[in-house]
Amino acid sequence: MQPSSASPAIHTVEVGLGERAYPIRIGPGLIDRLGEEAAALFCAGAPGIVLTNDQLAPSWGERARAALLRAGIDARLFAVPEGESHKSMPTLNLVLDYLVETRAPRQTVLFAVGGGVVGDMAGFAAAIYMRGVPYVQVPTSLLAMVDSSVGGKTAVNHAKGKNLIGAFYQPRLVAADLAALETLPDREFRTGLAEMIKHGVIRDAALFETLEREMPALLRRDYSRLGPAVLRNCEIKAAVVEADERETGLRAILNYGHTLGHAVENLASKDGMLHGEAVAIGMAAAGAIAVKMGLWSAAEAARVEALIRAAGLPARIPPLDREALMDRMARDKKAVGTTLRFVLPEAIGRVAIRDDVPGEVLAETIEEMMQA
Amino acid sequence: MQPSSASPAIHTVEVGLGERAYPIRIGPGLIDRLGEEAAALFCAGAPGIVLTNDQLAPSWGERARAALLRAGIDARLFAVPEGESHKSMPTLNLVLDYLVETRAPRQTVLFAVGGGVVGDMAGFAAAIYMRGVPYVQVPTSLLAMVDSSVGGKTAVNHAKGKNLIGAFYQPRLVAADLAALETLPDREFRTGLAEMIKHGVIRDAALFETLEREMPALLRRDYSRLGPAVLRNCEIKAAVVEADERETGLRAILNYGHTLGHAVENLASKDGMLHGEAVAIGMAAAGAIAVKMGLWSAAEAARVEALIRAAGLPARIPPLDREALMDRMARDKKAVGTTLRFVLPEAIGRVAIRDDVPGEVLAETIEEMMQA
Repeated sequence: MQPSSASPAIHTVEVGLGERAYPIRIGPGLIDRLGEEAAALFCAGAPGIVLTNDQLAPSWGERARAALLRAGIDARLFAVPEGESHKSMPTLNLVLDYLVETRAPRQTVLFAVGGGVVGDMAGFAAAIYMRGVPYVQVPTSLLAMVDSSVGGKTAVNHAKGKNLIGAFYQPRLVAADLAALETLPDREFRTGLAEMIKHGVIRDAALFETLEREMPALLRRDYSRLGPAVLRNCEIKAAVVEADERETGLRAILNYGHTLGHAVENLASKDGMLHGEAVAIGMAAAGAIAVKMGLWSAAEAARVEALIRAAGLPARIPPLDREALMDRMARDKKAVGTTLRFVLPEAIGRVAIRDDVPGEVLAETIEEMMQA
Repeated sequence: MQPSSASPAIHTVEVGLGERAYPIRIGPGLIDRLGEEAAALFCAGAPGIVLTNDQLAPSWGERARAALLRAGIDARLFAVPEGESHKSMPTLNLVLDYLVETRAPRQTVLFAVGGGVVGDMAGFAAAIYMRGVPYVQVPTSLLAMVDSSVGGKTAVNHAKGKNLIGAFYQPRLVAADLAALETLPDREFRTGLAEMIKHGVIRDAALFETLEREMPALLRRDYSRLGPAVLRNCEIKAAVVEADERETGLRAILNYGHTLGHAVENLASKDGMLHGEAVAIGMAAAGAIAVKMGLWSAAEAARVEALIRAAGLPARIPPLDREALMDRMARDKKAVGTTLRFVLPEAIGRVAIRDDVPGEVLAETIEEMMQA
């Protein structure tokens, strides 16, 4: 990973994965320049297809398509229904049917314009159509910019579990247009901040301190602060992915906040809880566990919880059935075929992967963190 | 690729693809030793799943499962319906549902026991379940042994075209049990011989001469001749795949016989024509085209046609609508977004990829090669 800066406003991170290396470009206005940004990917006469959802199609989807057309690229647009419930095999089949029926050739470049749902599904469609066509991530949410659009994890959900069907398949370019964040609803924006806090805790104390200092400016979506913050987060994510592309080791630290968070999300998503909110709760819980186990100072854990709250994110478990929560974690554990694994902070900027969290510590933490 | 020999009866070819390298083992009795052969792939407590079709399940499928059980591996069996029509997304979904519903962990090893249909689909299921689990090809047809089980091309068909949805995903081991060939129907056995002839023409004059000399012994399924012949074919396939894993260049020579063959297959498969038979016709046609274009000697083209016939394979186009045939080739060409590309012999053992076959030469060849 080599940071560099192409212009005052546009930042670049190179994800160093050998023959699968690609740049992440970050800055305002990138969607309107998509043709030029992606020009190197196109063979002569190859078309582009913008994959997006029906809510983004009239705005960012069409802008992306227009930008490709302006660059002389034959570009069409295909929209899937919005929402996580459509990150599914049936919707993926609609995408594949569209590609097959329009006879999209092997040189076709797919552009995933949207948040994580669009990016994960479009990336997976690109991975398996004709055994792989090039694709570009064009994240329009903060969460997708700092998390899902970097690293090549693509997937759809199965009725019995999230992201169970997918592939590791790297994009050829990530173009994160900060202008797309202007219209992002506040709650969604904050889930991106949750990932940023996560990256600070697991790898970078300086980033964490920057977030503490600049949270008000970030919440105002001030480009001059957002750009460098997104850049730093992409650098961290890229470094972790470079070290462990297929998640056999280090990459597991990105699951900080996910062990409990995933179980909470599973039980509370029907009440509208978002993934990033559940991860925020999970991070606070992981902190409490680390303190109880004597791994981490209570003062630093309190700073993390304070930053979670400053970002407008939840840090307490909503009222849920305790048995159901424990049961859900046990099921997740069984599904991955391992012990119950937690990513626990030892300092801000450093975590350990632990399989030895005592059951009573976990139960006590859940008890204390559950809202009355 | 490094040939070696582990015992008088068992041959090994190493496919040298760096971190994706794997051995091909060839010999009688390998299915009954599957547990030992695959032992290195299993994490402690990881289960094996035998994927096969309903016709092979009671015989080779159960034998594979029993062999895994004897080696102390928890093994189950899942059978899909037999036939190319089931190499489809709906059947793939049955496989994925089975994996999800039985909570197969990430360490699960899949064993594809069958011909190309089972191998291609099981390989694709392994590629996308939990973003990739290890799998082993256990080809039971000669065609699968010398072709589809080597090289990592996995796929299912789409209603609008073959192999349109898939992935490049290498197996961790190929175990080609020659004993499985004993019960293979003659016509299917011969389609494997078509691939062997193909390999001889494109890369290896010595193999071609061996096939000329030993065709009667091969047709009797004499192990002592079959083993070395399968070995040599796997070496050739492995060398081509090593040079061009993702089919961006050299690997295209494996499409010798496929340009016309694919179109013939498309129109004649409803009358029961098999893929290997269509390729045999396509090879004969490519030879005729090469001779007409002055690239190849008529004498060598006649040897290839004679060997095709000696293997009991067709070398003439069945009565089909000429217009439909030309139209089908034009559609295939449009689908891949390239010109009409032929792999044409220049000598036995050497081919060229040509985009410049004149339309009248093609039409004339079809006219001459079509049976009254």
